[in-house]
Amino acid sequence: MLGLMQEQPLLISGLIDFAARHHHDAPIVSRRVEGDIHRYTYAGAARRAKQVARALDRLQLGFSDRVATLAWNGYRHLELYFGIAGSGRVIHTINPRLAPDQVAWIANHAEDQVLCFDMTFLPIVKAIASHCKTVKHWIALCDADKLPADSGVANLRSYEEWIGGEPAEYDWPQFDERSAAALCYTSGTTGNPKGALYSHRSTLLHAYAGALPDALDVSARDAILPVVPMFHVNAWGIPYSAAMTGAKLVFPGAALDGASVYELMEQEKVTLSAGVPTVWLGLLNHMKQHGLKLGTMKRTVIGGSACPPAMIKTFRDDFGVTVLHAWGMTEMSPLGTVCQLKNKQLDLAPDAQLALMAKQGRAVYGVEMRIVDDAGHELPWDGKVSGDLHVKGPWIISGYFKGEGGDPLVDGWFPTGDVASIDPDGFLQITDRSKDVIKSGGEWISSIDIENIAMAHPAVAMAACIAVPHPKWDERPLLVVVKKPGTSPTRDELLGFFEGKVAKWQVPDDVVFVDSIPLGATGKMQKMKLREQFKSHVLPSPT
Amino acid sequence: MLGLMQEQPLLISGLIDFAARHHHDAPIVSRRVEGDIHRYTYAGAARRAKQVARALDRLQLGFSDRVATLAWNGYRHLELYFGIAGSGRVIHTINPRLAPDQVAWIANHAEDQVLCFDMTFLPIVKAIASHCKTVKHWIALCDADKLPADSGVANLRSYEEWIGGEPAEYDWPQFDERSAAALCYTSGTTGNPKGALYSHRSTLLHAYAGALPDALDVSARDAILPVVPMFHVNAWGIPYSAAMTGAKLVFPGAALDGASVYELMEQEKVTLSAGVPTVWLGLLNHMKQHGLKLGTMKRTVIGGSACPPAMIKTFRDDFGVTVLHAWGMTEMSPLGTVCQLKNKQLDLAPDAQLALMAKQGRAVYGVEMRIVDDAGHELPWDGKVSGDLHVKGPWIISGYFKGEGGDPLVDGWFPTGDVASIDPDGFLQITDRSKDVIKSGGEWISSIDIENIAMAHPAVAMAACIAVPHPKWDERPLLVVVKKPGTSPTRDELLGFFEGKVAKWQVPDDVVFVDSIPLGATGKMQKMKLREQFKSHVLPSPT
Repeated sequence: MLGLMQEQPLLISGLIDFAARHHHDAPIVSRRVEGDIHRYTYAGAARRAKQVARALDRLQLGFSDRVATLAWNGYRHLELYFGIAGSGRVIHTINPRLAPDQVAWIANHAEDQVLCFDMTFLPIVKAIASHCKTVKHWIALCDADKLPADSGVANLRSYEEWIGGEPAEYDWPQFDERSAAALCYTSGTTGNPKGALYSHRSTLLHAYAGALPDALDVSARDAILPVVPMFHVNAWGIPYSAAMTGAKLVFPGAALDGASVYELMEQEKVTLSAGVPTVWLGLLNHMKQHGLKLGTMKRTVIGGSACPPAMIKTFRDDFGVTVLHAWGMTEMSPLGTVCQLKNKQLDLAPDAQLALMAKQGRAVYGVEMRIVDDAGHELPWDGKVSGDLHVKGPWIISGYFKGEGGDPLVDGWFPTGDVASIDPDGFLQITDRSKDVIKSGGEWISSIDIENIAMAHPAVAMAACIAVPHPKWDERPLLVVVKKPGTSPTRDELLGFFEGKVAKWQVPDDVVFVDSIPLGATGKMQKMKLREQFKSHVLPSPT
Repeated sequence: MLGLMQEQPLLISGLIDFAARHHHDAPIVSRRVEGDIHRYTYAGAARRAKQVARALDRLQLGFSDRVATLAWNGYRHLELYFGIAGSGRVIHTINPRLAPDQVAWIANHAEDQVLCFDMTFLPIVKAIASHCKTVKHWIALCDADKLPADSGVANLRSYEEWIGGEPAEYDWPQFDERSAAALCYTSGTTGNPKGALYSHRSTLLHAYAGALPDALDVSARDAILPVVPMFHVNAWGIPYSAAMTGAKLVFPGAALDGASVYELMEQEKVTLSAGVPTVWLGLLNHMKQHGLKLGTMKRTVIGGSACPPAMIKTFRDDFGVTVLHAWGMTEMSPLGTVCQLKNKQLDLAPDAQLALMAKQGRAVYGVEMRIVDDAGHELPWDGKVSGDLHVKGPWIISGYFKGEGGDPLVDGWFPTGDVASIDPDGFLQITDRSKDVIKSGGEWISSIDIENIAMAHPAVAMAACIAVPHPKWDERPLLVVVKKPGTSPTRDELLGFFEGKVAKWQVPDDVVFVDSIPLGATGKMQKMKLREQFKSHVLPSPT
């Protein structure tokens, strides 16, 4: 027997309608690519999102057709979020930091019909336009008079001219809430990028969960500055959670340096921000150099990669800001965990709280987690043992766009590729990537732990710990080190440095010195290349 | 095209599983009917909810079969919430304050198979047992040795004996999230009670929305004492939102007097509570009499009927507690609005904030609202004009159980029976009940406004304002007054009292003095009876 509740699909159009009706004058502030500040409200955003929908209708785009963006965080990008998805199309946010041929590959794979871009990215568009077979319309996110006359891009129009003549009234279509709404490609370390295709349902549930007090804690009392890009997994869902709550939005555009971010935070009385550690390093350095304080900031969400505990402490002790350490993935919409203390932890000493806050945190409601060993058996939540992290839930992928890579699920769970421990209170700690962990005699050694210790040695400029095949233990750790200029550490000196810091069996078997360690486009060490390079390395004394 | 997200139904069993896994040691504290305090955790609650599910399987109850409760707020009632709904049956919470024949009528209408009751309500059960044809099993929520030998109720068992032998492992069934989960009857002023049948989907969406920072703001840092009964619209969803977040739960049982509630709040470090105004009056009186303060309480949700502004002010100024004024209905699961300030209102003067907090507040995301005039035309949100309040959303009924009362919706909207204004910021203010408002020449006069003014007159003990038919204006207001002993106010004196307080055309046309005004079971004035009594009253000077 079904309940007797109204059947209302969870649709993204409902978010912008709600914001326009209940928070019509809540401000949306954007630093534009042009450098100036643009201000309007949710009512204005809703009107223009409807103009976008009309403009797409006029282009005769079909249901679920893809419309791509190459854009910074700003009001026009926000309008595209709601206008594209709200009208039944799929917004495909492309990462402009990718190489042009990768952008073209992704646009072709997604079969994008329209591509909207900030003028910053005109060089990319020029490079790819002739290679993107499906893109019929190129829209520059600017006024008509800013459009370059000699772009060389066919069918190039300005956004303002494109939507300008359209009426601002539009009846959003109603459809199955499981319909596709947004597409984001994840760039794996191997193979071609694969697309995560979000639905209206997953986006709405994620928006509810992301706004909860135990997640990002978003309300109508907040002013949010998302530094995390809108081209990167929906800016962690902030555009949706903000519309759901009527929070003020402050978009930094292309200016992500410490000084620009600080200025915007203070001028717009920002209470909540979100981004990767490197951005916050820039902000902290700027504030320290100029002896500045934060007036209204209360919380900042840090994810994308692990946040150093020292940064959490600095934000807390020097600036009164709580760092919400978070973890997620493109395949997870992206929120998986956020580190928020429990009632029983509120009375802990500051250092004990800091140790907890350095973990990636607790599952947002809707995300189930488990850790498993090599045989797929579930491991205990004791905060010590690490295993492959699996997740499931309504905003986690069941497969990639067009079935690329086959069925990624294992018994209904999505294997994250991360290795983690979970403590009895449900606090997740990522200890390694699955492909980087060293599996020695059935025990797992975290390459990150070993590297962190090595990096603390005064003579080590960079260190990578990788697995080397071993006849008895399957794998043993090898430490690859770049020396600091003017130093000459020895193998034995470095290995001795681990004494008392890790268990004896976790100490690397050998050290090799190299001139450099290969880095990927996002600055991460490419340990796969090192493993290939040293796969035949003979360990000194196989024990 | 559908998104490629995992298909996971939103089920109530997921809530208790999550709480047991992520908040296994979060406490659940109950004052029992026996008078003592019972303590355990979410892990314990989950185990025993699974025992309930097993016990229901053993009784061979089918999918969607109804299991009734007549119970206070306590841990066993919580286990029934999750065990009954989680296993695919429907928990039917019956209001024990109804007359026994009404309880029997409701149990028969719902076709309850099992009825679980606190020993407090044994007299009701004795009175109705032989009249409840469908109830095959009567379960007393007590230990086996507390079961009365001579109850006279056939098939009476103790809860502890009933579930005691069952294993605590259970694989919750997976099914359509729109399946019925809970049933609650609303007692209208006319006709038989009608049932609102909630689904798993509506319950989960309501739990997300209810926990948002702009609603009840529930987190793992909270200890919640729901005074609002679990037999009254799911205790405003608190059992579900608490499990979703792992908040500590503190159940007051039958002891709802000021002293008992205060003691529990302080002993258990309660941060959040919820209930109707009369309970808080008792608490405030107790604290004032004994010069007490609240140590940890931060917020209290007040709904059920309008909260007097003076109470909001007392809580804020004398006890540092924020009153969250809320509005909802049985037909709405129940949350419609909660009064939480917006960013731009944080700097308002305390009095201006108080004026806002006295309104019923802003729509929780998921609830759409509109106000309409007699012709069904939508009225503006200007904070002045009042109209019939309509709502829609995924946790609002589409119809009543078994189709009673026909299709209640108007163009897809549920007419609440309330008259309200909505201001430009979306703050709702209930001004009257639709049936009580006086419609004079196309304008509406709030009977409540008139009564509130009359009640401020020193000679008025009680006042009701009702509509009397009028040849020219359709209806005009008549004031029905009970004098205070020893006073003798005149008609003209009372009418003169309205001068300058309301518009001239809103002043009642006449006053009649009566010895008493009929009250209903819940203490509300039965204005319908007064309207019948005075329907032929001749107004002195039809103008």
